[in-house]
Amino acid sequence: MVNPFNAPQRILLGPGPSNIDARILKAMHTPLLGHLDPLYLQCMNDIQNMLRAVFETTNRVTLSISGTGGAGMEACIANLVEEGEEVLVCVNGFFGQRVAEMVERWGGKPIRVDAEWGHPLDMQKVRDAYARSSARIVTMVHAETSTGTRQPIEDLQLLRQIRDAIFIVDSVTSLGAQPVGIDRNGIDASYSCSQKGIGAPPGLSPVTFSERALDKIKKRNSRPRCWYLDIELIDKYWSAEHAYHHTAPILMNYALREALAIILEEGLQERWERHKRNSALFVAGIESMGLRMLAAEEHRLWTLNAVRIPEGVDDARVRTRLLNEYNIEIGSGFGALKGKIWRVGLMGSGSTENNIVLLLELLRKILKQEGAKLP
Amino acid sequence: MVNPFNAPQRILLGPGPSNIDARILKAMHTPLLGHLDPLYLQCMNDIQNMLRAVFETTNRVTLSISGTGGAGMEACIANLVEEGEEVLVCVNGFFGQRVAEMVERWGGKPIRVDAEWGHPLDMQKVRDAYARSSARIVTMVHAETSTGTRQPIEDLQLLRQIRDAIFIVDSVTSLGAQPVGIDRNGIDASYSCSQKGIGAPPGLSPVTFSERALDKIKKRNSRPRCWYLDIELIDKYWSAEHAYHHTAPILMNYALREALAIILEEGLQERWERHKRNSALFVAGIESMGLRMLAAEEHRLWTLNAVRIPEGVDDARVRTRLLNEYNIEIGSGFGALKGKIWRVGLMGSGSTENNIVLLLELLRKILKQEGAKLP
Repeated sequence: MVNPFNAPQRILLGPGPSNIDARILKAMHTPLLGHLDPLYLQCMNDIQNMLRAVFETTNRVTLSISGTGGAGMEACIANLVEEGEEVLVCVNGFFGQRVAEMVERWGGKPIRVDAEWGHPLDMQKVRDAYARSSARIVTMVHAETSTGTRQPIEDLQLLRQIRDAIFIVDSVTSLGAQPVGIDRNGIDASYSCSQKGIGAPPGLSPVTFSERALDKIKKRNSRPRCWYLDIELIDKYWSAEHAYHHTAPILMNYALREALAIILEEGLQERWERHKRNSALFVAGIESMGLRMLAAEEHRLWTLNAVRIPEGVDDARVRTRLLNEYNIEIGSGFGALKGKIWRVGLMGSGSTENNIVLLLELLRKILKQEGAKLP
Repeated sequence: MVNPFNAPQRILLGPGPSNIDARILKAMHTPLLGHLDPLYLQCMNDIQNMLRAVFETTNRVTLSISGTGGAGMEACIANLVEEGEEVLVCVNGFFGQRVAEMVERWGGKPIRVDAEWGHPLDMQKVRDAYARSSARIVTMVHAETSTGTRQPIEDLQLLRQIRDAIFIVDSVTSLGAQPVGIDRNGIDASYSCSQKGIGAPPGLSPVTFSERALDKIKKRNSRPRCWYLDIELIDKYWSAEHAYHHTAPILMNYALREALAIILEEGLQERWERHKRNSALFVAGIESMGLRMLAAEEHRLWTLNAVRIPEGVDDARVRTRLLNEYNIEIGSGFGALKGKIWRVGLMGSGSTENNIVLLLELLRKILKQEGAKLP
């Protein structure tokens, strides 16, 4: 006999996953269907329609890749970037860096524009670099999960004044929790994840591709190598033809459908407002404790709140105490920010006043016990 | 309000997914943990240990890829095949053909050895082709889902008498239901899926890589392009280091862990016997109805039973009636076998005498109503 796997009920306030709504677990109990069952095909259609609403797009090719957010990132890069092609890659955190690595892996030439982690990119610098390069693809991370920084993406499309471009935007930590506005912002390809702002369990990656992006893919000199992430094949599986590509993760898609229904019932605007309000509440509590946020107010994410760890406080010890004594998970920093910040996720059904009140009180208590000087 | 998604309780006897044990759904209700939570890491370890038992291997790198079976196939090809390298690809069905396509996509030169769909490869032909080629990789589909044919893999390792080789074996429709024997059969890499013989929902792909395979990957001239399926990165995420790669599909891994526990509690030998016994029972019923199986007895899979559709019977109509009137799903044929066979999956918790009795009786009834002449 293998021991059953048990887990305590954690409050997940890290970079993701967040806790999931009980409705989603219930939806995963919907009887399993075959992946080409006419009833299941309706579930796929529903997902596509609701994803379009959440991405704020009319893009036909809007669907969920059967892999996690990283698979979505790679689907964008592997399909859009051609051998030897320059790609302008904006980097101000771990995930921007990952995009640069992926561009390189796929034979592209990343032209990096960097900003300090925790700060947004300077759009003038981006503009200058774009003008100097021959790139026709620009990548940008809307919500940098590693730093809690929001990159304004509204002005990205102004680069088209210089030369036409394909814009790829990472919306992993923003979609469903703060506005992404694919069509409004002229974005051609974006990838997100089923967890975080969407609120389903991790495992899927919603993506959207504009006609302009699909056109670039169609005109490639060679077919994209990766079969699993070939967006033309995946599109044929999701669209009316339903040409067999792989066997979809059925229960995960049930979960995603329910998560999207929850989002639309709450209302996009209301949901964004809730995330904004709760993030502000958390920040106010943190600052009243004498602690400071990493990102400046106007560039802070509402989903992922990066708090500077006060001098002399043991990062791991505080997180371990929260986890072991109180069943609360918060995230650590990455790379250069390791030991420097805590990452507090207030996303999806986890973005509640209850969670914030609880975390702030326990954090205050632990920090005092650990000898931090608080006001 | 979005309408809730409902589905009837289907009996899934197609090529997969099969119905899942209620214990697995229960396991998916285990509270969600963070993917780097020490408790979750234990769940990953358990999965690795149990997968080794089911693959019958001591391979350290035995884990579950966060994508479906096709992702596992591509992980093997993309990591092992180098630019310009000849690969001996055995093809006797749709999935062997897909391997050939993937080898080509990844820059390899597939040297095909073909057999008619529904027949196994002739090992002498394979041997001759291997001797003539310069290939150092040989791929073979153990259980061809498109035809219900089992390819004997015991003699594969005899090819090493000619020249050392890496053997990649597709065990998508055999693992957990009939013996694969990775170590015993000298196989270097194999991929399967979480559904079918394993019995969890679709979405994950168990894989195993021998030290010899890892060594070939380490000695590559260039890094494999695909980041999401880079086995060295995935290994670092699963092994003691737990270096962040992606956020695992936590609930799917809870499900996989439980499915593997169910397999080991039943006992591998007992489980194989059950699948063999039930397949024989089904075949006896089919033959007593005057119908015939596609594959010869000694090369039939126990999991996927391909029945020749009697002359004059409308393939789609019979399947649609089974689905709509009786909530039973069976599969259609692929490619050259479209309209020629039905594919009946008796896999995991779906391999029961009850399901067989029910399907045979309803099939007999429908076939008579559709005007087929049965004894």
